[in-house]
Amino acid sequence: MNIAMIEAAALRLKDRARRTPLLSSPFLDEIAGRRVFVKPECLQHTGSFKFRGGWSAVSALPDDIRRNGVIAFSSGNHAQGIALAAREHGIPAVIIMPADAPRTKIDNTRALGAEVVLYDRATEDRDAIGATLSAARNLTLIRPYDDGQVIAGQGTIGLEIAEQATELGISGADVLVCCGGGGLTSGIALALEARAPHLRARPAEPEGFDDAARSLAMGTIQRNTRLSGSLCDAIVTPQPGDLTFPIMKRLCGPGLVVSDDECLRAMALAFDRLKIVIEPGGAVALAAALFRADQIEGEAVIAVASGGNVDADVFQRALTLYA
Amino acid sequence: MNIAMIEAAALRLKDRARRTPLLSSPFLDEIAGRRVFVKPECLQHTGSFKFRGGWSAVSALPDDIRRNGVIAFSSGNHAQGIALAAREHGIPAVIIMPADAPRTKIDNTRALGAEVVLYDRATEDRDAIGATLSAARNLTLIRPYDDGQVIAGQGTIGLEIAEQATELGISGADVLVCCGGGGLTSGIALALEARAPHLRARPAEPEGFDDAARSLAMGTIQRNTRLSGSLCDAIVTPQPGDLTFPIMKRLCGPGLVVSDDECLRAMALAFDRLKIVIEPGGAVALAAALFRADQIEGEAVIAVASGGNVDADVFQRALTLYA
Repeated sequence: MNIAMIEAAALRLKDRARRTPLLSSPFLDEIAGRRVFVKPECLQHTGSFKFRGGWSAVSALPDDIRRNGVIAFSSGNHAQGIALAAREHGIPAVIIMPADAPRTKIDNTRALGAEVVLYDRATEDRDAIGATLSAARNLTLIRPYDDGQVIAGQGTIGLEIAEQATELGISGADVLVCCGGGGLTSGIALALEARAPHLRARPAEPEGFDDAARSLAMGTIQRNTRLSGSLCDAIVTPQPGDLTFPIMKRLCGPGLVVSDDECLRAMALAFDRLKIVIEPGGAVALAAALFRADQIEGEAVIAVASGGNVDADVFQRALTLYA
Repeated sequence: MNIAMIEAAALRLKDRARRTPLLSSPFLDEIAGRRVFVKPECLQHTGSFKFRGGWSAVSALPDDIRRNGVIAFSSGNHAQGIALAAREHGIPAVIIMPADAPRTKIDNTRALGAEVVLYDRATEDRDAIGATLSAARNLTLIRPYDDGQVIAGQGTIGLEIAEQATELGISGADVLVCCGGGGLTSGIALALEARAPHLRARPAEPEGFDDAARSLAMGTIQRNTRLSGSLCDAIVTPQPGDLTFPIMKRLCGPGLVVSDDECLRAMALAFDRLKIVIEPGGAVALAAALFRADQIEGEAVIAVASGGNVDADVFQRALTLYA
């Protein structure tokens, strides 16, 4: 993994991914006690940053391999990112999803042209299903984060942040990133290392699922004890990736941890002050920027709002409680 | 009014206003039966396009006049746009607001540093209050739409649309604009005439408050019979402006009219598919793009989502009904 791979991904993504703006509000600055900037990847195609990594990985395949199609495991955002990238390449996509995934995510993935294969989390082995399908149809597996081209695609967000921070005259800032397996965090960290070394990437996670923060603190990969029970389902993974963790360990500042409740407050503030829709897992970085000011350095803070695929009832709960 | 004034406003607004992206979703394309693009001015500073006109007008004043400060009448978006523009210029702003304006809009305007003067709609004459204050303190009145520099500022959205449509390969499209007094519509129409004559501006309005559509159909200025009772309060005005109507008459296609209920549906779809927050008055153009397809020409349609300053309870109503 290096900056050249990210630059190459940026070329492949040109005119395909949206260049998202950096948003701000004086009202958020006041809460945080410093300038706050938000990179709204909820406005990306399919409603999350995952389209970047999906397109990067699909477009990097050799023609004769890509033609056969791709396969992915996902209950949500990665599924939709891969489905759209495959459709725009005119190739088949098979997405293996748990049968209890939110109905709207299954429907959306199908509507984007993917073949959705459902499995029972309790009784079936998704890896076995994937291996069988993949072998029978020569499909290429695209992992959600432990894949060089996926990391490179997510890293293009870091290139944009580096440019936008320069335009805005940001002299030093922590860049807070909603962190699951670490693809987004490590990609951004690599881009900042090369293009904006005065900016420092830091993972943000929900309480009880802070594997990245603990892994960074210990210096070795730590696992989460639970894998469900967070409102931030989109970014809950067992542990940091084998590819992503060494990058995070070398480049990232300490992890930040926020509560589900603070994510709901951040969602309501993003509604009120930025006019964007973010999902709980996409709100952890903004929540940390606003409510962990004492753990943050620099005259400004940049928070990546990584996705907006939230059901209306959860969004309404945030508004009822805090808007 | 001419394109040179808009180009000059664009120079003054550079690095001040946000260049908003053009958003899209295959799910919206399917509803409309053509490609749909949304210009989300809800993401502009202060949550609506009004900041552009406000900044344009304040920055165009001669230094010695501007120094004394500005004054405006507004119950909402124009108030906040002027307040922020004045604050960033370091000059005083007085905003005359009805005492029954939404509390949050009054609070926001004050929080942006403006001096808010409240008046009673039933018993007091706001023009008299404004004239007295203005004369006593040498404040310059900035009208919400019948002002050349305000129109020029709103027209910068048309310049951006012209560039973005070229990048996206849009060969012909109606550009639907949420229309109150017509500052936004006429500004965009002037910019498109000069920079993208294959795009045609058309006003969109709520049912019962379709003064622009009727005025265009008759060829002379028509008034609304009512001035309250629409969910789309932000864009209800008595009649098209004396400056804006001749421009609209010369350049715009026929007006489109939608119901309050269709605005709520458009708000829910914008939540679900674009991850943006729009207010009812900012949703009329998108509603027309989606639900008046038979009255629209071209392979694509562009809708300006003009603002997002909506109270949580109204937004929740949209989600409860339609998300």
